[in-house]
Amino acid sequence: MVITKKIQVGTRGNSEVLDITPQAAEAVAESGVKAGTATLFVVGSTAAITTTEYEPGLVNHDIKAAFEKIAPANARYEHEETWHDDNGHSHVRASLLGPSLVVPIVDGKLTLGTWQQIVLIEFDTCSRNRLVVCQIAGE
Amino acid sequence: MVITKKIQVGTRGNSEVLDITPQAAEAVAESGVKAGTATLFVVGSTAAITTTEYEPGLVNHDIKAAFEKIAPANARYEHEETWHDDNGHSHVRASLLGPSLVVPIVDGKLTLGTWQQIVLIEFDTCSRNRLVVCQIAGE
Amino acid sequence: MVITKKIQVGTRGNSEVLDITPQAAEAVAESGVKAGTATLFVVGSTAAITTTEYEPGLVNHDIKAAFEKIAPANARYEHEETWHDDNGHSHVRASLLGPSLVVPIVDGKLTLGTWQQIVLIEFDTCSRNRLVVCQIAGE
Repeated sequence: MVITKKIQVGTRGNSEVLDITPQAAEAVAESGVKAGTATLFVVGSTAAITTTEYEPGLVNHDIKAAFEKIAPANARYEHEETWHDDNGHSHVRASLLGPSLVVPIVDGKLTLGTWQQIVLIEFDTCSRNRLVVCQIAGE
Repeated sequence: MVITKKIQVGTRGNSEVLDITPQAAEAVAESGVKAGTATLFVVGSTAAITTTEYEPGLVNHDIKAAFEKIAPANARYEHEETWHDDNGHSHVRASLLGPSLVVPIVDGKLTLGTWQQIVLIEFDTCSRNRLVVCQIAGE
Repeated sequence: MVITKKIQVGTRGNSEVLDITPQAAEAVAESGVKAGTATLFVVGSTAAITTTEYEPGLVNHDIKAAFEKIAPANARYEHEETWHDDNGHSHVRASLLGPSLVVPIVDGKLTLGTWQQIVLIEFDTCSRNRLVVCQIAGE
């Protein structure tokens, strides 16, 4: 059994961290799958998906600061010189983190920890409408 | 066919790298699945899963050094100020690496390279009992 | 239904970024799977898989520069002292990025964005023949 659910979120940009656990959990509940996996995949090359404890210190400061250190917004990127835009760092950060996450489904629920949320990070420099494909497979 | 196996490991913390390939391979063998995938997912937000060559230089030094450079243990993290704990770097490192890994199963075996092991990295600052959900799907 | 396709590519090394989207898309088309997932897994511990916009600035400069900053080629790695080789940084970079990527298949196609390609990054310091296992599961 394979069920596709589409999660749409509006973002504000600049390494904003959004909790998409409620939407993913609802998709799993609606699918009726009791044992399987949920693959979350963000369409596009300037956003990424991972898990974190969704608390203000981490999501508003610490994660942003880590990515600013790894790929600073104001460094020189050839991508920007080619296209005359400002999101070279967004692409690099998104590629490093990756667009997909797979979470097991056991007894009809995602096997997340209590303080472990599924997050979309919007690395682009402007607000975007994002599509996350939630592919649920199992029985 | 979906089979859930739970891998439990005791860890010591501080970016300790543990080889969980034997447990994953045993889970696949026990499942009877000949063609499919094994999803390894660590529950919690201060540990992560990837692959590496499991040799002392990499696992006891080089990988730890890379994460210490990316998110130093002694830097300032707002997470720590909020919660009065010491593991802000643990969260950042775990989110960067990610909690899940998917490995194909072909002819009843994980398609790992000879010098490629599945590892759990314990980024927390203390010993933990970790649960890795190994979700095996296929035929 | 589980179908295994093997993608073989020759690489040149040193963080070369190769677009393997055509091979992955062809594997999905040949499989006949209309709804499911494609798991791309590179065998070996000095290469990795992610997505990016495949344009010269990013793939020939910006991504290489980011990894050179994270794990410089000329830093000291214990892996190199143990084995008298030169690819300690290759291992660290590959473990950070990870060997696997899972992309949903909807209506018989990978759900990639228009400017989002699947890439293999060859972190080793020499040319290699790489095997990427493309495990397609679905209906």
